[in-house]
Amino acid sequence: MIDAPRDKPAVQNETARIEAFSDGVFAIAITLLILEIHVPPRAAGLSSTLLALWPSYLAFVASFMTIGVMWLNHHRLFTLIAKNDDGLILFNLVLLLGVTWIPFPTAVLAEHLTGHDQRDAGILYAASFLAIAMVFNLMWRYVVRMRLAIRHVDVAAISKQYLMGPVFYAALVVIALVNAAACLVVSILIALYFALPPSLWRRKDRSARAT
Amino acid sequence: MIDAPRDKPAVQNETARIEAFSDGVFAIAITLLILEIHVPPRAAGLSSTLLALWPSYLAFVASFMTIGVMWLNHHRLFTLIAKNDDGLILFNLVLLLGVTWIPFPTAVLAEHLTGHDQRDAGILYAASFLAIAMVFNLMWRYVVRMRLAIRHVDVAAISKQYLMGPVFYAALVVIALVNAAACLVVSILIALYFALPPSLWRRKDRSARAT
Amino acid sequence: MIDAPRDKPAVQNETARIEAFSDGVFAIAITLLILEIHVPPRAAGLSSTLLALWPSYLAFVASFMTIGVMWLNHHRLFTLIAKNDDGLILFNLVLLLGVTWIPFPTAVLAEHLTGHDQRDAGILYAASFLAIAMVFNLMWRYVVRMRLAIRHVDVAAISKQYLMGPVFYAALVVIALVNAAACLVVSILIALYFALPPSLWRRKDRSARAT
Amino acid sequence: MIDAPRDKPAVQNETARIEAFSDGVFAIAITLLILEIHVPPRAAGLSSTLLALWPSYLAFVASFMTIGVMWLNHHRLFTLIAKNDDGLILFNLVLLLGVTWIPFPTAVLAEHLTGHDQRDAGILYAASFLAIAMVFNLMWRYVVRMRLAIRHVDVAAISKQYLMGPVFYAALVVIALVNAAACLVVSILIALYFALPPSLWRRKDRSARAT
Repeated sequence: MIDAPRDKPAVQNETARIEAFSDGVFAIAITLLILEIHVPPRAAGLSSTLLALWPSYLAFVASFMTIGVMWLNHHRLFTLIAKNDDGLILFNLVLLLGVTWIPFPTAVLAEHLTGHDQRDAGILYAASFLAIAMVFNLMWRYVVRMRLAIRHVDVAAISKQYLMGPVFYAALVVIALVNAAACLVVSILIALYFALPPSLWRRKDRSARAT
Repeated sequence: MIDAPRDKPAVQNETARIEAFSDGVFAIAITLLILEIHVPPRAAGLSSTLLALWPSYLAFVASFMTIGVMWLNHHRLFTLIAKNDDGLILFNLVLLLGVTWIPFPTAVLAEHLTGHDQRDAGILYAASFLAIAMVFNLMWRYVVRMRLAIRHVDVAAISKQYLMGPVFYAALVVIALVNAAACLVVSILIALYFALPPSLWRRKDRSARAT
Repeated sequence: MIDAPRDKPAVQNETARIEAFSDGVFAIAITLLILEIHVPPRAAGLSSTLLALWPSYLAFVASFMTIGVMWLNHHRLFTLIAKNDDGLILFNLVLLLGVTWIPFPTAVLAEHLTGHDQRDAGILYAASFLAIAMVFNLMWRYVVRMRLAIRHVDVAAISKQYLMGPVFYAALVVIALVNAAACLVVSILIALYFALPPSLWRRKDRSARAT
Repeated sequence: MIDAPRDKPAVQNETARIEAFSDGVFAIAITLLILEIHVPPRAAGLSSTLLALWPSYLAFVASFMTIGVMWLNHHRLFTLIAKNDDGLILFNLVLLLGVTWIPFPTAVLAEHLTGHDQRDAGILYAASFLAIAMVFNLMWRYVVRMRLAIRHVDVAAISKQYLMGPVFYAALVVIALVNAAACLVVSILIALYFALPPSLWRRKDRSARAT
């Protein structure tokens, strides 16, 4: 009808569409967080009820920064992936399931941060991050084992760097046992740590590329 | 104002934008699922009320994996499509309508999984998946009949492969008649089956391309 | 830090990002529609309460098809646009405001379809579509007047074709005065009419390009 | 499995994915605004309850236009950015956090616009915009200081232009002290001002490019 059938460069498209789909899920999950902060009704004084919502604001910032940094690391990881297979797609789906899940423990922790059950809410929150960090590590190991990574990557250094995630979030679970508000503050610090420093594996990657 | 008018390569853009729009709908539908899990209020003990939400978690995982695999198959299908016409766009819209619909039967089944009406909720859930699988098949047949597919595709093998969807989801409707929780577990297994094995038509496609 | 600064091809990016942003808004608005269908609680029999939700289902399908076809026409319109300016961006924002608005009149009509106020709800619904169709027409006229369109376009034919939108949706307002359910059914028919036939202006466009 | 490993052009992808992710967040935040307008129940007369929702409509339009223009400026800013680093990504995340936040003060102001606490709600609304405009300025200064901008950009003119944002939104905070409804109307006017005129820095940019 329009022109003769042509073959498509399927492989390149496939990686691009996984990244685009993942970006979409990250962007939506990070934006849905605001829906969990409920507007105070007209009854009481607005300024005091707005101030009383501080657990919601703190949880919003903590989860926003954490999902944002997870997106960043997901994006960095895919710059290291040259090939794509069904197993990687499945790992990626499980990772996105974890990201999509986050608005729920965030809302639970915001609701219960100043209540009797703050410890349980904090553990649910920290354990959710821990689980996602572990899937991230399993996914990277799968990439290495199936030889899906680009050439000239210092695998040992990156693998070591990726272990920081589970270690930090396991510590966050321990913090949640003590204080749920501290758990939120520390998760913001962890996100800043992962976002800011020129991470080890990126330097390795760049120096490898330069040679 | 900026520079002289230029013609755009409209056809290629058109396919790309259909895929981008579809990716967006899939990504949003899959992420909205979490909004249907409601945060327990402060009244009762948190850990017990969180545990009592297991039907919501199970339904979340089942629908997430199913939409995820539908996205994957949608993506694979479009790697086989070289051309685009109004009928395909309409089929795609109906398919997306089905995907967008899923959060509703998911929430209904989660709410009623342990109630008297679990059978009706399970049938609604399984029948929704069955309907989407049937639209998928009709869409593929339309692609073949209108000669929109790329060359060197083993049409018979793919058509046979695509029939697995309606067969599996018809079986899921039967399972829903017996037990709604089993219906959720089996839908996870079906999603894993569609995600994992190097599917028949992809091997055909690749071997055809190799010649 | 990474490499020397380079200039970007800003103009092409700009059009692409407007389309990408618009696709995102269309995809989200079309998917949010399902959130307006509320899950029936456990109290009554599920099958009868599910059947009683038919106004919600009908409104969901009507708005989904209408937004879907609006996306399609938006996409077709942008294949005719070669250049971009601030006015077009503002027109596009107003158009997207209309699309984003649709879930509200959809939910109002679903809630009131079988009530005393169905006429008011139907007028709100049909008038919303009429307003969007009028913005579409103003936007196309702006494109023509500012010479933003690609060459070889039969402007008169397209302008005539675009007038169908306001005419059809003005008729829909009249139908809403009589029967709100008919208003929903007719809006589905209008969407199918705009989606299916190879539209006049596209044939003109293609034949013009062929010469 | 599929073909030999290949290196990816990581840098270009990185900027593109930041823009794509940001576009997604802007598109979702702008579309979620409609969820804050609640459907009136069947009890009272529909037309009068619909009219009584005018604060919600006004707040919806004001926030929609403001987020839309923020997206536009974000997009324009990135056409001036040639390079990318971790600090820019973090600044961008904080900016997106501000954008994602907007549906909350919008809903608070809509709820309280005609109540006793309209002043507090208006200040929250205007101060949110002021904070985002300040992050925008800090981000641009960071781009300049780290030499991430493209060549031939009149930095002084753009920096001066960008200061308009904080100045206008500081004035909006003052207006909120007087009248919350005026605050909404003025924020629409500010958005139109930023959207319409061929902004100073763009002319500079173009003339610089022409030389």
